[in-house]
Amino acid sequence: MSAHSPFNPSSAPQPQRAIPVAILGATGTVGQRFISLLDGHPWFRVVALTGSARRQGMRYGEAVHWLLPSPLPAWAAEMPLLPTQPESLRGVALAFSALPSDVARDVEPQLAARGIWVCSNASAFRREPDVPILLPEVNAQQVAVLPQQQARRGWKAGIVTNSNCTSSGLTVALKALHDAFGLKAAFVVSMQAISGAGYPGVASLDIVGNVIPYIGGEEGKVEWEPRKMLGSVTSEGIALADFQISAHTNRVPVVDGHTVVASVALARPPQSVEEAIQVLERYQPPAIARDLPSTPRPVIVVRREPDRPQPRLDAFTGGGMTTVVGRVRPDTIWDLKFVVVSHNTVRGAAGGAVYNAELLVSQGWVS
Amino acid sequence: MSAHSPFNPSSAPQPQRAIPVAILGATGTVGQRFISLLDGHPWFRVVALTGSARRQGMRYGEAVHWLLPSPLPAWAAEMPLLPTQPESLRGVALAFSALPSDVARDVEPQLAARGIWVCSNASAFRREPDVPILLPEVNAQQVAVLPQQQARRGWKAGIVTNSNCTSSGLTVALKALHDAFGLKAAFVVSMQAISGAGYPGVASLDIVGNVIPYIGGEEGKVEWEPRKMLGSVTSEGIALADFQISAHTNRVPVVDGHTVVASVALARPPQSVEEAIQVLERYQPPAIARDLPSTPRPVIVVRREPDRPQPRLDAFTGGGMTTVVGRVRPDTIWDLKFVVVSHNTVRGAAGGAVYNAELLVSQGWVS
Amino acid sequence: MSAHSPFNPSSAPQPQRAIPVAILGATGTVGQRFISLLDGHPWFRVVALTGSARRQGMRYGEAVHWLLPSPLPAWAAEMPLLPTQPESLRGVALAFSALPSDVARDVEPQLAARGIWVCSNASAFRREPDVPILLPEVNAQQVAVLPQQQARRGWKAGIVTNSNCTSSGLTVALKALHDAFGLKAAFVVSMQAISGAGYPGVASLDIVGNVIPYIGGEEGKVEWEPRKMLGSVTSEGIALADFQISAHTNRVPVVDGHTVVASVALARPPQSVEEAIQVLERYQPPAIARDLPSTPRPVIVVRREPDRPQPRLDAFTGGGMTTVVGRVRPDTIWDLKFVVVSHNTVRGAAGGAVYNAELLVSQGWVS
Amino acid sequence: MSAHSPFNPSSAPQPQRAIPVAILGATGTVGQRFISLLDGHPWFRVVALTGSARRQGMRYGEAVHWLLPSPLPAWAAEMPLLPTQPESLRGVALAFSALPSDVARDVEPQLAARGIWVCSNASAFRREPDVPILLPEVNAQQVAVLPQQQARRGWKAGIVTNSNCTSSGLTVALKALHDAFGLKAAFVVSMQAISGAGYPGVASLDIVGNVIPYIGGEEGKVEWEPRKMLGSVTSEGIALADFQISAHTNRVPVVDGHTVVASVALARPPQSVEEAIQVLERYQPPAIARDLPSTPRPVIVVRREPDRPQPRLDAFTGGGMTTVVGRVRPDTIWDLKFVVVSHNTVRGAAGGAVYNAELLVSQGWVS
Repeated sequence: MSAHSPFNPSSAPQPQRAIPVAILGATGTVGQRFISLLDGHPWFRVVALTGSARRQGMRYGEAVHWLLPSPLPAWAAEMPLLPTQPESLRGVALAFSALPSDVARDVEPQLAARGIWVCSNASAFRREPDVPILLPEVNAQQVAVLPQQQARRGWKAGIVTNSNCTSSGLTVALKALHDAFGLKAAFVVSMQAISGAGYPGVASLDIVGNVIPYIGGEEGKVEWEPRKMLGSVTSEGIALADFQISAHTNRVPVVDGHTVVASVALARPPQSVEEAIQVLERYQPPAIARDLPSTPRPVIVVRREPDRPQPRLDAFTGGGMTTVVGRVRPDTIWDLKFVVVSHNTVRGAAGGAVYNAELLVSQGWVS
Repeated sequence: MSAHSPFNPSSAPQPQRAIPVAILGATGTVGQRFISLLDGHPWFRVVALTGSARRQGMRYGEAVHWLLPSPLPAWAAEMPLLPTQPESLRGVALAFSALPSDVARDVEPQLAARGIWVCSNASAFRREPDVPILLPEVNAQQVAVLPQQQARRGWKAGIVTNSNCTSSGLTVALKALHDAFGLKAAFVVSMQAISGAGYPGVASLDIVGNVIPYIGGEEGKVEWEPRKMLGSVTSEGIALADFQISAHTNRVPVVDGHTVVASVALARPPQSVEEAIQVLERYQPPAIARDLPSTPRPVIVVRREPDRPQPRLDAFTGGGMTTVVGRVRPDTIWDLKFVVVSHNTVRGAAGGAVYNAELLVSQGWVS
Repeated sequence: MSAHSPFNPSSAPQPQRAIPVAILGATGTVGQRFISLLDGHPWFRVVALTGSARRQGMRYGEAVHWLLPSPLPAWAAEMPLLPTQPESLRGVALAFSALPSDVARDVEPQLAARGIWVCSNASAFRREPDVPILLPEVNAQQVAVLPQQQARRGWKAGIVTNSNCTSSGLTVALKALHDAFGLKAAFVVSMQAISGAGYPGVASLDIVGNVIPYIGGEEGKVEWEPRKMLGSVTSEGIALADFQISAHTNRVPVVDGHTVVASVALARPPQSVEEAIQVLERYQPPAIARDLPSTPRPVIVVRREPDRPQPRLDAFTGGGMTTVVGRVRPDTIWDLKFVVVSHNTVRGAAGGAVYNAELLVSQGWVS
Repeated sequence: MSAHSPFNPSSAPQPQRAIPVAILGATGTVGQRFISLLDGHPWFRVVALTGSARRQGMRYGEAVHWLLPSPLPAWAAEMPLLPTQPESLRGVALAFSALPSDVARDVEPQLAARGIWVCSNASAFRREPDVPILLPEVNAQQVAVLPQQQARRGWKAGIVTNSNCTSSGLTVALKALHDAFGLKAAFVVSMQAISGAGYPGVASLDIVGNVIPYIGGEEGKVEWEPRKMLGSVTSEGIALADFQISAHTNRVPVVDGHTVVASVALARPPQSVEEAIQVLERYQPPAIARDLPSTPRPVIVVRREPDRPQPRLDAFTGGGMTTVVGRVRPDTIWDLKFVVVSHNTVRGAAGGAVYNAELLVSQGWVS
């Protein structure tokens, strides 16, 4: 099975030579997706892989329990697994971080201070007003907060994050509706794939033939992160958008692909369901994020069958970067109901971070 | 595995001799639950089983593809499978109907007209104002509509229904909260077990490792039936309760047990989560439904662990008749959030219909 | 859901008062089964529960992640979790061990030396010629090796083990065939439930929608333990039976119940499949194991449907103690083929150990 | 997700222009794979799709319940669904048949008689001595039986079949071992994916959290078809190879990829496991099948990890055409044990039939 990430031919200004990058926390499920997605990337060349202390000195191929159906690339298998520290990353311009949040909190600022850009999948800095949660097809312009970040913290480079894997696809859909109709509130309920919990992650005895109606810390993230992503850059950092979210998050026995159902209240409801569908289908990214190698094409697909989207069938749409929406219909209490499926380790994690990195490069932050 | 239906020792007035009952549509998944639950019932004796035309003349044991882990009772295996028509049901006082809705629409009135009570799991008559959707622990008093039903339709007996399998446990929880705090609105999202779709029902290629965010006709039922069950008997039949529900219904790869997450708006919100929990835990059925063989004991269990209830672990609580609630917590937009697990083929189907029948007997309708 | 272990009314000589027992390693999946099965046992009273060091001082109800659909008994929830050492077990006559094998190797002999009988689920001592692997319905007479064990090791009490969970049901079927037809060789392939791997055990990412064709160390056990269980007691301990087994062991996404398919070569093949079926159906335990509270009734059920036994439907037959056989048919190379389903944590673990303990009591070893 | 069938650049004599082909029974799971695999095929152009009577007149996109994660190609969605009869197939040179066996028995000879070659996935003609079961990487030379077929039956074209989906990968492995070591006998046990049963196929209530140890008719096929594929062409048609197979076939809750475990007896056993592994790894197809667009590259991959191959991770190796072997080890009774994973709807069905068609074209049978 080839090419989950068929990069777009991009007319964006390309780097003159491959940018040397590192993957931090490379052995986990998100780290594995980074390796798979960066295999053949037109702009980046992986020069360092880091992992936990007990595996150091091993080759990556020995250290990893590879869990993807696509094969482990040979170049990665032979790389040594390095300690997660600045000294391991000489010559690296940008690091993709799949670190646990507590490790990220220590290590990522050290890298940024020394001039290594960090595109992080960790939640450690998402709550900081001067650290953007980037979803380039939604809020590429939030890179405008980076000068504040560098000035306040005295960093040569900086940290950008991507959102938790449940918020990403949801926020793409909310953005399109917010622009057109003014979002006031959303009830959202997730049914999340097991790959979102890492490896070993969820015990099979807990999830085979079962649902776990709880994911620690997740509901708070889903209720807050979309508001920051749809917020605006002020002199005090990023201000939250003015709407409310109530979230229930659940784990289901699905391998890849988070499903989110949503009911939304809108300031200026559409005249018809069809109008809402067209707003979703026609949604375009901001100009600066429109033509990058990982730009989802299209950003949103709307399925019109009654029973789609489904995670097993739709999560890989657009190589896993496209947000798939379906069942757009009136809500009995508020205005609209719909279903979103998004690939949690591609658009919701590694693919999102790569897209963020492309944005930083194309905007001249990384060179 | 014994005794999913350990009947309570009941002090209710008991019938002097066993009441002869039939099971209509006995070979399906709900029909099988009826047989399992009525095996050893203290009040009822199964004297007729009916099935579809192409299987008639077969013994039940030959005709059925038995899907329960508990063994097919020997008495049932030997019974002949009869046509679903009044002539098959001589001597029957009450029929449990697991018929498809279109067949139910024809057959059930014929039986009621001839003096056979029908406790129906079909949706055919649920929308009729003079046909109650009974959930005895919630609305036993709605039997008061039966004289209207008999008078208007000229029936010797009558039809009572139970709700769709998703609404039943949900409505038990809503009832307790409504009594205490005044329900104004609810957003509810179900994750429903495959046994709710009958057999063969959901194709494995559609659901293994997947979620189907659609169940035909289900959302309309979940948005309407609880309002009728919590409504009141008027001279025009049953009037709907005055609150709104918005529902999203989903299928997940779980065998038994529907999980429903809910966010509710309340007229007089509780002072604390603990107050709400105690209201749920202390909920008692109406007096006339409190002491029947199938009365759930307790009606509601509230789990206080962060990750319960779960369908695989909690659906069989109280022999599958108890409603299990958990994760009671504040809602960010409205007042409360919680999770409900209920057994869809016991409390939500066959067990509920048996409980309804017990209510009819104890109230003197069936003799 | 009640009563997975409906104990038989037994005419065996009963102990005059309840025998005080301990469960070692009580928090794991097998430990939980012990608690569930001993709840209401007519002969035994649980007086001590032990667990790993980091949980000590906790109540059992706090320490355990309870994974069974039947509720945690209240008496167990309140018991303190003790260290796994002889000092914790004053007054205990018999200990059920669900310890990891390395811990069992240290602790179990200490108990036996001090006069506490050990019914162990661990593999630590199964290879010792003077320690029987008991399957009372098959080889109850192997208790005859216990005097050798006590004499050689200077123990006041002793250790008896049960087999690995895959061998138990298989060996019951092989025993019946061996007695009648003389077993020469068997090819066996298992499809094993995830509960056999404990908790957290198998990661969901490894097994949802997948098969793992490997279980560490299991094939060697399945190729050897049945030969010991069908062997004979000599002055040198237990001698292996004279046949060969080749095993492939696999993990599948099933919660409870191991399925084993087998092809066997026989010295005196039956005249017909029906003859083989009758030999299986009529199999009786040795007289001394025939009338104990946990004796499976019947020992073997033979299903005649083409597609049975299946683990989800058949593993709980006889409360999980009965061995279910099906698809008995001629083999194209050897003599017979068939399928066995057995409950891996009941007959294959905790239930088997309780049956062993009952045998020790009824034979006068424990008092 | 792109390109499950990345066709090889082939140096074989190519057709001068695209060969017009039909897919018979195009709406089922195998029909869908045909469409996906032929999308972009360098030699073939799909000009007709046929389906069952009740869907005729519909566009394919309306008629199909598309079940693959890769999107339905636009060209196919717009094609009309035609009746499965010769009149529908004017101008077609070759038909890929995914017909049910009873329909295939009627229709396929009619096509062959009229000069349309049939590459069939149906079992209808596999038992005929003059109809080859082709596995080009194994027995491409069995096309030598086609002149007998045409002469005896008076057909202008002919029928070639592919084996049942369980035998295909197994036979590739057996062929390599047979050539090197002389196969005498094999015990094989399958754990088969649900996609092998078509749609709706296996009911979810039968397989979620379960194993079904029975697949109707499958064991007879697995015991016979490999012997024909490894047999030789004689003047009486194809003679079976001289070894025996005993098969147990099982269904497991896996979406794609059949897993087969095997124990084999060999005439000249290898000196070491490593010798057997190298024989498997170095296996090469017959020269005439070595350089076709669908030739698996490599034919066999041997995994050396203890727990591979696994269907979810390995079935798509080589675009689903490669046979993946692992756990090669000594057998306790015979000589070798191993595990085979093969993609059941690619190598085992549609992909195999396309490879067969390429062989017919390259050998000059189709033009």
